[in-house]
Amino acid sequence: MRLATRAQGTPDGELVVVSTDGSRCLPAGPRWPNLLAAITRWDLAEPQLRTLAARLVAGEGVALDERELRAPLPRSWQWLDGSAFATHAELMRVAFDTRPIETDKPLMYQGMSDCFYGPTDSVPFPDAAHGIDFEGEFGVVIDALGMGTRANEALPHIKLIVQINDWSLRALALAEMKTGFGWVQAKPACSMAPFAVTPDELGTHWCDGRVGLDLAIDWNGKRFGHANGREMAYGFHELVAHAAATRNLVAGTIIGSGTVANAAYTQVGSSCIAERRAIEIIAGGKAVTPFMAFGDRVRMEARLPDGRAPFGALDQVVVLAG
Amino acid sequence: MRLATRAQGTPDGELVVVSTDGSRCLPAGPRWPNLLAAITRWDLAEPQLRTLAARLVAGEGVALDERELRAPLPRSWQWLDGSAFATHAELMRVAFDTRPIETDKPLMYQGMSDCFYGPTDSVPFPDAAHGIDFEGEFGVVIDALGMGTRANEALPHIKLIVQINDWSLRALALAEMKTGFGWVQAKPACSMAPFAVTPDELGTHWCDGRVGLDLAIDWNGKRFGHANGREMAYGFHELVAHAAATRNLVAGTIIGSGTVANAAYTQVGSSCIAERRAIEIIAGGKAVTPFMAFGDRVRMEARLPDGRAPFGALDQVVVLAG
Repeated sequence: MRLATRAQGTPDGELVVVSTDGSRCLPAGPRWPNLLAAITRWDLAEPQLRTLAARLVAGEGVALDERELRAPLPRSWQWLDGSAFATHAELMRVAFDTRPIETDKPLMYQGMSDCFYGPTDSVPFPDAAHGIDFEGEFGVVIDALGMGTRANEALPHIKLIVQINDWSLRALALAEMKTGFGWVQAKPACSMAPFAVTPDELGTHWCDGRVGLDLAIDWNGKRFGHANGREMAYGFHELVAHAAATRNLVAGTIIGSGTVANAAYTQVGSSCIAERRAIEIIAGGKAVTPFMAFGDRVRMEARLPDGRAPFGALDQVVVLAG
Repeated sequence: MRLATRAQGTPDGELVVVSTDGSRCLPAGPRWPNLLAAITRWDLAEPQLRTLAARLVAGEGVALDERELRAPLPRSWQWLDGSAFATHAELMRVAFDTRPIETDKPLMYQGMSDCFYGPTDSVPFPDAAHGIDFEGEFGVVIDALGMGTRANEALPHIKLIVQINDWSLRALALAEMKTGFGWVQAKPACSMAPFAVTPDELGTHWCDGRVGLDLAIDWNGKRFGHANGREMAYGFHELVAHAAATRNLVAGTIIGSGTVANAAYTQVGSSCIAERRAIEIIAGGKAVTPFMAFGDRVRMEARLPDGRAPFGALDQVVVLAG
């Protein structure tokens, strides 16, 4: 099942169920006005939404105007982003010229969850000198679960899978890391691709709590990377369990994979500029690729073997704020 | 004006305006069902709520049952906690045996905002070996403001002042700091004292973006500290500006002061156990005071010179989760 959120003048938008080919939709209706309401009572909402999905299969529905689509969750109560790709962690160590991070647990930070930009929104930043970078990743949305939930118990709480751009300001990031407090200024609002999908929508490409799809990234119309989501050192269920160790997790919590990266980065490229710069340092001693300039465009899309893009595309331009 | 939230079976509770002596209240009514709704349109809500406050002065209202009170904001979209007391930072450096944090900006992390425990809720933790500690602090609640808002512009956006216990798990904290990602497991849900007050309620004790009141802390009935909130190295308006550097701040954002601490800690004591342990290390080479045990109680209250406690009291017992 594919879900989307239409603009409707409300902060949370209007929840719609979308046909498999993305051409038609049916509003979820007043009982489930938005996705945050639905995920809060997913036990009740899911069967009703699947009834609408069946009606879409039968040919019902109205034309979906993609220009009306916002992030599936324009806001939520909690966003916890992991960094589960070992290749990304190693390349960022090179990019920042730091020592390896010593930990026997998943890496995770709490980020801004009150705003996720929609798939074609312009994304404002105050200063290009902050080192504007994209980070292509996958994420999951869970229903409520209790403190101490284990990884094997967490897997069935993963109700939806999403695709995210975790915008990062690299020139501010290292100084914030060094404080130990994590990122505030270096991690402004993220973007979310238009469709949230149930795990079954990905078929065998949802496996062991990982999204086994290539995430194609184009920067100003040129292919930048197409790393696959399967190489996570920890599956999403393990990231959920990490987050739940000392807190109850609220329904609608979004957990991110961190930047998708593969050991074969010389073949598949990268999902963020900082990684490419690290690869340049490794190869030639210095970073050559600059970070983003105002007016730059980045497009991110994952496709199934049959060509469908289950999450739709993120296609955004960065602009000067204000 | 003093505001509180009564339990009402809804996640956000019911907003009430409270009389100056805390004995009576008037419900804010259906237009402003909860504080999150009111702070989102504070320009409209404040005059209407002040009309209710005037009716309370005139003797109207129903008896307030303090046992019904929850956190004024049982949840919000964003919680950003500073660490603005230099004495606290220096003592934590001793407690963790680390080097001084080098930064020319305020310290701040993004924490869990989907749950603030109410003033007399039991607080569950999974394991006493995690080093359960309280952190007494003040906080402010703002209405919406834009990216790049400066400190002097931020001051009038501070609409409410609150009192918070930022529960911390010390045995997990240093390892998370060392990753640079900040705290997830070490910073579970916080607690909030029952009354949120407008700045005028504190009179001259709200000065230069700081709360000039002693925060009295009693651990198992014994005075532990009574440090004053005035010694912040950065005022709340400066913390707000720091947070807004690269993001718009959503209405209802809560900004914390960090643990209240004074240079004269030998006279006034501390607002968290980790600080006392650091002081013991400085004085005698080793920490003696243990962290909290299940069944321990901590009470936090700030009083005006006339004896009134503007925020009411936090009075909670820590319990084993599950």
